[in-house]
Amino acid sequence: MAAADALAKVHARIDEEFDRHVERIQEYLRQPSVAITGEGIPETAELTASLIKDLGGWARVVKTRSHPLVLGGLKGASDHKLLRYDMYDVQPVDPVDEWVVPPWSAEIRGDRIIARGAQNNKGPLRAYFNALETILDVEGELPCSIDFIIEGEEEIGSHALTAYVNEHREDFLGYEQMDGWFAYQPTPTSPPPIECGFKGCVFFELVAKAPMDLHSMMAAVVDNPAWRLVWALDSMRDASDRVAVEGFYDDVVPPTEEERANLPKLASYLDLPRQWGNIERLRGEARRSPEEMLEELFFRPSPINVQGLTSGWQGNGCKTITPGEAVAKIDIRTVARQDGRKLLEAIRRHLEVRGFGDLEIRAVDVTPWSRSPMDSTGVRAAAQACRDLGWEPMIVPTDPGTGPSYLFTNNPPLHLSEFFGGLGHGGSIHAPNEYFLLEGVRLFEKGAVNYLHHWADLASQSD
Amino acid sequence: MAAADALAKVHARIDEEFDRHVERIQEYLRQPSVAITGEGIPETAELTASLIKDLGGWARVVKTRSHPLVLGGLKGASDHKLLRYDMYDVQPVDPVDEWVVPPWSAEIRGDRIIARGAQNNKGPLRAYFNALETILDVEGELPCSIDFIIEGEEEIGSHALTAYVNEHREDFLGYEQMDGWFAYQPTPTSPPPIECGFKGCVFFELVAKAPMDLHSMMAAVVDNPAWRLVWALDSMRDASDRVAVEGFYDDVVPPTEEERANLPKLASYLDLPRQWGNIERLRGEARRSPEEMLEELFFRPSPINVQGLTSGWQGNGCKTITPGEAVAKIDIRTVARQDGRKLLEAIRRHLEVRGFGDLEIRAVDVTPWSRSPMDSTGVRAAAQACRDLGWEPMIVPTDPGTGPSYLFTNNPPLHLSEFFGGLGHGGSIHAPNEYFLLEGVRLFEKGAVNYLHHWADLASQSD
Repeated sequence: MAAADALAKVHARIDEEFDRHVERIQEYLRQPSVAITGEGIPETAELTASLIKDLGGWARVVKTRSHPLVLGGLKGASDHKLLRYDMYDVQPVDPVDEWVVPPWSAEIRGDRIIARGAQNNKGPLRAYFNALETILDVEGELPCSIDFIIEGEEEIGSHALTAYVNEHREDFLGYEQMDGWFAYQPTPTSPPPIECGFKGCVFFELVAKAPMDLHSMMAAVVDNPAWRLVWALDSMRDASDRVAVEGFYDDVVPPTEEERANLPKLASYLDLPRQWGNIERLRGEARRSPEEMLEELFFRPSPINVQGLTSGWQGNGCKTITPGEAVAKIDIRTVARQDGRKLLEAIRRHLEVRGFGDLEIRAVDVTPWSRSPMDSTGVRAAAQACRDLGWEPMIVPTDPGTGPSYLFTNNPPLHLSEFFGGLGHGGSIHAPNEYFLLEGVRLFEKGAVNYLHHWADLASQSD
Repeated sequence: MAAADALAKVHARIDEEFDRHVERIQEYLRQPSVAITGEGIPETAELTASLIKDLGGWARVVKTRSHPLVLGGLKGASDHKLLRYDMYDVQPVDPVDEWVVPPWSAEIRGDRIIARGAQNNKGPLRAYFNALETILDVEGELPCSIDFIIEGEEEIGSHALTAYVNEHREDFLGYEQMDGWFAYQPTPTSPPPIECGFKGCVFFELVAKAPMDLHSMMAAVVDNPAWRLVWALDSMRDASDRVAVEGFYDDVVPPTEEERANLPKLASYLDLPRQWGNIERLRGEARRSPEEMLEELFFRPSPINVQGLTSGWQGNGCKTITPGEAVAKIDIRTVARQDGRKLLEAIRRHLEVRGFGDLEIRAVDVTPWSRSPMDSTGVRAAAQACRDLGWEPMIVPTDPGTGPSYLFTNNPPLHLSEFFGGLGHGGSIHAPNEYFLLEGVRLFEKGAVNYLHHWADLASQSD
């Protein structure tokens, strides 16, 4: 175990150098890197590689058919090696009028740095480099080796990452663990989550069609695609909230007794809808206990989410037609051991059996889920790093959202263990006035220092 | 009864002057009059008034808060007086690229005049003036008096007409009958319909709301307005096509034995969806007889038509949200003796009882139905005019669509009798390449001549 006084020295240096650390984060945030437009993407890839080289590591920018990947590495005291997946791209800054400072100015206002990417994820990535630099400065070497794979299109689907990892799986066989130390406290006072995976995501459009729009005077004697879509949807999930697709829950693994007993500790996740969207009342709050809702959130597929509806006339007032087409955009968050493709087949069968076989399923995109053990060295090291700084973490079976980490964890022969979480609060990601709290930066950096030391210790104990 | 040889002389003059008649229709169609943009509206109002004056009548353009009305009149041989409601406005010409001739050129291509308004309704209106002119030319006077009220915003809701008629009801008490002679054959060979009313229309938006869009990772624990809208809709009309709103059919008057016996003669209405919209299979064709479908079309309210759906993400691909709002645009065509406002109350109660009381009903617009006797002098005169020219008409209880004629027929103390229909085919109304068949013009004009004579005869017989 790293000596407490060694860690204290590194923390003290972080405090001493903190203004400079913040300035470096601001510099990095001032470099735009918008995945969807490509603005600043090549420049940010080069800049990111140079940051690794400045730390004494190797780095190269890998061209792809879309945005470049940054690969790199730093040799540490032991051969135990973490693989850090990260991203250098961000979402667009629109609506730009709503920002209190220009979104690429990275100005400090009060207790925070405000910029696009401040929290997701350029702020924490640059802070991570600050932490590594401080360890090198004070201790002369890192406690373990770290390799990087940093993509520039997480926000638009991780296409290059997916292709690259699938084509070079053997390159990633030598790691024990993904480095998932991310600034992830949902509020400045929330317990830090340490999540052991991601839900998968099945996306598709469900389409009902007629030859064309028709005057609604004939509504009594013609099929209406909007109604057929409504009925098809209702047949899949009715107002009692039952998903009626046969086989929908077949492959779902129920929580273990231990996982179930852990659920009450995760209750702060039920506060997120209020924090993010002013949503006062949760769905089914009256008839479901918090534990049932938490089980739904972490261990069960989301009950067929409609993310958009489009049909017929959508302008002002009335246009008396029966529409020619109706489309629902749908996502379903899958859990272990569900197979997204199999789920789609179940939905297709369901529609056929219910008389909706003419509806089309199109624009399908399937991202697998990912799950790692809740007692991996990474989780234990991250949890200890939180406790060192006075924060009791939540150990969470999975993030309720979806990420590309299945590529490393659930993509044979790759079975790296992952976690995702840590200390430090930021917010308003994808929205105006995205921020990273200054005290969040400090917590994140100190936590990263401890986490790396704990991980190196735990990894060498297992030798 | 007008002597057959008198009518024959007028018909002969129509044939002699036919090229000039067509030219005048073309001239009128070359004057744009787009209600929604206002393009050419004042000019067309003045032009229309001048056409009545050219026939020796009186006419004035009445300013309103929106588009002007044209009032006018022609004194005939008898004091029996028809009230002709008509329109001088048209829909926009978009998509202009799809026209084979410029939409305001009114060029003749093959057997037809092609122009915006050719069929709906500037072509027939100008042809009607041709018919009147020919009668005056050959016979020296019209067989009856005719007054006109011609609006310039039928295509955008008849607001000025509604206000004017409601404020001047006493001005319209002196008429026996609306003049409903319109070019209305759905195909060049269809039996001419003579319709004795219109369905009403209840329009509203049904809106489900949440405070804002939320990341769909929380879909398991938050309400989704798109789903609430789907379930609310399904509760009102399920896939078995049953409208489940209590009281929905309460005030519906079933067809009399005579009306029921007449239904098979109206079967050509079931061809309209194929002619208009390439719709091969009618809704419920397998389980309903043609007579049942015709009863549905003419004697029952349309089963809650969804004309549009809007919710959440509608661009390309996936945006993993639960949407903040979902809207359905709905119309219901009402029949005698339904009260649109009462129907809305029934829907509101239905939603409350089913747990959808939080959904908003907004943007309400209610147009009443209108029904007149199937043996009025107008219907009998129009039917005879069709038979004179070798066409056996369909006497139809109601148009399946909606019009503003309730203002005159169903708006106490006004109880004028109406019909709507006649000889002459045109098509593609509201669409590119709208047309009026040249032979349709000829039939329409000759039919109008006979209809007016028959009506004057029947009206004086009732003295």
